[in-house]
Amino acid sequence: METWELLKTLSVKNSSRIVLLVMDGVGGIQVEGKTELERACAPNLDRVAAEGVCGLMDPVFPGITPGSGPGHISLFGYDPIKHQVGRGILGALGIGFHLEKGDVAARINFATVDDKGLVTDRRAGRIPTELNQELCRELEEKIKIKGVKTFVRTVKEHRAVLVLRGEGLSGEIKDTDPQKEGLPPLPPEPVNQKAEATASLVKEFISQAQNILASRHPANMVLLRGFSQLPHIPSFQEIYKLNPACIAGYPMYKGVARLVGMEILSTGGSLKDEIETLKKNFNLYDFFFIHVKPTDSAGEDGDFERKAKVIEEVDALIPEIISLNPDVLAITADHSTPSLLKAHSWHAVPVVIRANTVRTDTVKRFTELECARGALGRFSTQYLMSLLMAHALKLAKFGA
Amino acid sequence: METWELLKTLSVKNSSRIVLLVMDGVGGIQVEGKTELERACAPNLDRVAAEGVCGLMDPVFPGITPGSGPGHISLFGYDPIKHQVGRGILGALGIGFHLEKGDVAARINFATVDDKGLVTDRRAGRIPTELNQELCRELEEKIKIKGVKTFVRTVKEHRAVLVLRGEGLSGEIKDTDPQKEGLPPLPPEPVNQKAEATASLVKEFISQAQNILASRHPANMVLLRGFSQLPHIPSFQEIYKLNPACIAGYPMYKGVARLVGMEILSTGGSLKDEIETLKKNFNLYDFFFIHVKPTDSAGEDGDFERKAKVIEEVDALIPEIISLNPDVLAITADHSTPSLLKAHSWHAVPVVIRANTVRTDTVKRFTELECARGALGRFSTQYLMSLLMAHALKLAKFGA
Repeated sequence: METWELLKTLSVKNSSRIVLLVMDGVGGIQVEGKTELERACAPNLDRVAAEGVCGLMDPVFPGITPGSGPGHISLFGYDPIKHQVGRGILGALGIGFHLEKGDVAARINFATVDDKGLVTDRRAGRIPTELNQELCRELEEKIKIKGVKTFVRTVKEHRAVLVLRGEGLSGEIKDTDPQKEGLPPLPPEPVNQKAEATASLVKEFISQAQNILASRHPANMVLLRGFSQLPHIPSFQEIYKLNPACIAGYPMYKGVARLVGMEILSTGGSLKDEIETLKKNFNLYDFFFIHVKPTDSAGEDGDFERKAKVIEEVDALIPEIISLNPDVLAITADHSTPSLLKAHSWHAVPVVIRANTVRTDTVKRFTELECARGALGRFSTQYLMSLLMAHALKLAKFGA
Repeated sequence: METWELLKTLSVKNSSRIVLLVMDGVGGIQVEGKTELERACAPNLDRVAAEGVCGLMDPVFPGITPGSGPGHISLFGYDPIKHQVGRGILGALGIGFHLEKGDVAARINFATVDDKGLVTDRRAGRIPTELNQELCRELEEKIKIKGVKTFVRTVKEHRAVLVLRGEGLSGEIKDTDPQKEGLPPLPPEPVNQKAEATASLVKEFISQAQNILASRHPANMVLLRGFSQLPHIPSFQEIYKLNPACIAGYPMYKGVARLVGMEILSTGGSLKDEIETLKKNFNLYDFFFIHVKPTDSAGEDGDFERKAKVIEEVDALIPEIISLNPDVLAITADHSTPSLLKAHSWHAVPVVIRANTVRTDTVKRFTELECARGALGRFSTQYLMSLLMAHALKLAKFGA
């Protein structure tokens, strides 16, 4: 039995409100003896840590570095290994494409093939994004396949996304990208019988695309990979009986939030805008997922000081969240992004829960090491939602 | 593979003795800065904490509030989600009914129906317990169903328990309680084919009961729910090669202990009586489960001071347990019951293990926050039994 299956039988509706503030990639490792959280002057985060209960979380299991998909799937209470979101789907979510149930999505690389049909450049010389947009428009307009609607949308440079919409499609199709230059593109092979019809449609798509792109050297071919469909993930409404809202600036996070049934609130791009959106909508929902991107971006850029600065900017807005008086406030991340590594990492993620119903601990600062000695101990991120539900008194007793 | 399956292959018999002292619901949350354990003056518990090794346990998983059933199933080393004990069975155990293998138990509500057979009061005006006893006696005496023996026993007010005993019975029968007034009672539907015969017997029971109760307005009907059978749970003898005894005052805990193969020792109701029973039987068994109820009762009553007082009363008896020189002494709870919440809660449970074989830590007091920094860390309650077995040197090495 998965966690959510039990939670579904225990969840109850009440009027309490939960705010989950995700500072993407906020955890770090020490540079000159301090992490970014330790470097930042963040009295409000520290106050929340002092009033609440703290701990450390593993997004997947110790040692695993999650992408944004698994990181958030876990934060939302699902097993990130059982509920994997395909790369094509994540690509489509990442550009804000509104996927429908049954859609099949794949990543596209514009590529170069020679007269013999062998791939000479898997990235078509990294064509400019503007050319990519022009090609996508042309492909989407001109390609006609009976029984299926095709969408071709730009990501960036040589990267794009294909979405097929129709009846009875399957995402179980192998990549056409041969992964090496000097080889021909692979045929879109069905993994099983159920995928045969869809594979034929993809073959037809590639054939038409190749004709349209024939004169567009170096972008005279498309390579497809990561075919996938929206996974069936039981929604927040179904499991938690929540009426949840997402406040995020980036399409990827909105996409994953939509996947679990959250209403996506329109918001400006700054942190201040996000908090304004929270204020405006506070009475309309009982769960808010607020996503803060710049902590992660600074970490990925390896900019230690900027990441510390962003933490201070978030800190300055915490009193505004607290003044709304949420019954439960949790502050955490989807994964760590240490500036030193310039990338997502496997290091455990600090978390604090503030509520009238917490058993507080002695932690006084919101830092990785202080959280490591918090009373929540170290646990898997996928249990955060059950803790938030419990602290909001939204879970009935299990068994008599 | 479940935990116990491995333990079964590793357990060895030796002469060491384990005492598991369960202070039901002992964990709390702070009131005016202190939990009940922090408020109590408990030098003996503190001494055990100082000599032993401490930690915090989650009875099910973080955020889940267990009933007494799952709380104890987990303490005894079983997965509380895989081994759920049905509500009918817990009801029968709760009144001390001696269930046999194959018995089907259900909860009864005496209820009121009108002339059209619609339920007008699901609780029959909460009839007095004395009337309940009279009705149960009458039903048990008069109802005759071919091939099955029926037991009808009082719980309290409008609540009672039905037990069916016979060959080939099934507990997979749906509730007859419509959960709302103004509706007729539901028929006892079988969930699958295997339960069809039992469902017919239940139908017959209801029909005879309704005739007998016809003149007993407001208690002129029975509503049944929580049909269940004793789950198959491998015994302590089978898994641990233990010869275990239970010292408890309340039927529910004796019932769950009997379910896993414990001998139920007869004891007086006070804590002092329970310790006397331990002393008298100490040489006859190698595992003792001692259940202390008043910590939970005080918590459920929201009586912070009384709960602290009960902790002090238990504390005063600890030296008598220690003087018996058990090889392993563990003190913990099945769940927390914070006085502030007046109910079971999800907050992690403090635990201490005292044995010659522990790696001690720096914890000096038996409180939630001190245990949170104990060397056992935070773990799932279902691993407590393997820790106790290990500290008693009753587990062989796993693998070569």
